[in-house]
Amino acid sequence: MSERETGRAQRVDARTNRGRILDVAEEVFGRGGRSASTEEVARLAGVGIATVFRHFPTKAALVEAVLVRRFDRLREHAEALLDVADAGTAFFDFFSHLVADAATKIAIGEALQDLAGDTDGDAATASLGLRRAFGALLRRAQQTGAVRDDAELPEVYALLVATSRAAAQAHLDEEVRARMLAIVFDGLTPAGRLPMR
Amino acid sequence: MSERETGRAQRVDARTNRGRILDVAEEVFGRGGRSASTEEVARLAGVGIATVFRHFPTKAALVEAVLVRRFDRLREHAEALLDVADAGTAFFDFFSHLVADAATKIAIGEALQDLAGDTDGDAATASLGLRRAFGALLRRAQQTGAVRDDAELPEVYALLVATSRAAAQAHLDEEVRARMLAIVFDGLTPAGRLPMR
Repeated sequence: MSERETGRAQRVDARTNRGRILDVAEEVFGRGGRSASTEEVARLAGVGIATVFRHFPTKAALVEAVLVRRFDRLREHAEALLDVADAGTAFFDFFSHLVADAATKIAIGEALQDLAGDTDGDAATASLGLRRAFGALLRRAQQTGAVRDDAELPEVYALLVATSRAAAQAHLDEEVRARMLAIVFDGLTPAGRLPMR
Repeated sequence: MSERETGRAQRVDARTNRGRILDVAEEVFGRGGRSASTEEVARLAGVGIATVFRHFPTKAALVEAVLVRRFDRLREHAEALLDVADAGTAFFDFFSHLVADAATKIAIGEALQDLAGDTDGDAATASLGLRRAFGALLRRAQQTGAVRDDAELPEVYALLVATSRAAAQAHLDEEVRARMLAIVFDGLTPAGRLPMR
């Protein structure tokens, strides 16, 4: 291998390691909460603890990187849904997706909550990006009449965070979660558009 | 004073002290979370730390007693509302009352959550009593057609806990909280009874 090729291979390795560490950290922190150990992450990722610390100097940095990636992915998902023809379906599907996701992965609801008053840091920025993308989905759904137009982002986002946390922490089973969301979604639907129940 | 009178006076003192300690603990734990100190409670209640420990041998016992009293009061409030003529108003008023209460006092939502899977202990028993009384308010509101009859207690209670936590932890201002609850309440109202919005 040429020197250039060796350098590239190392960079690819580093990227692969970083991604693998994040994948494992997301799972480990999701399972055990943030009290899970960095050692466990290193072991399950098949790398030395030194490699973890080279990418993420502190555990806080690792947790933040996991959150940033999750917020970014959720934001990208929301942004992709801005192109879907049915704006109402896009909005409600995304809401359900986030709540279902929160129920099984790292306590995203908790993180969203913790960051609510925070304006510094990459996770806070990523969280704000997600909130903006969600706001865009909401406005579009309101413009097409699928969501009542007197609902504003602060309370709709509060409901998103509240139901995400409930799903994650109260260990609601899937049916209860679905019925809980059905109530919220009916509340968000203009009166004239509610199906006969 | 006779011996009997002295004994009675001491018992009255003890009751007064107990109540005062609980009042202060409720406020202190509500302000500072459960990390607040027992020493601070003793100081603000104007009693010695020994008196606090005589009534509540551990901090956990003190926190539990605060929770039991709050759950019991909320349950009594709910039970009193079972006699109100308008069952729908009684149900929605109680829901709002609990959420507003959660926003300003000890993290009752958190406690409700923590106790969700718990069946032991006085706080768990008191929490279950509150859930039952809330269930009775819900059934009565459903019988009069004020609440949709396909909503079941698990999801309605999950929404009560979720919105309580959101109000307390996201520091929602009063208007956002009111609009959040309006969405949930509309979702709980049978379609035919929704006012034109």
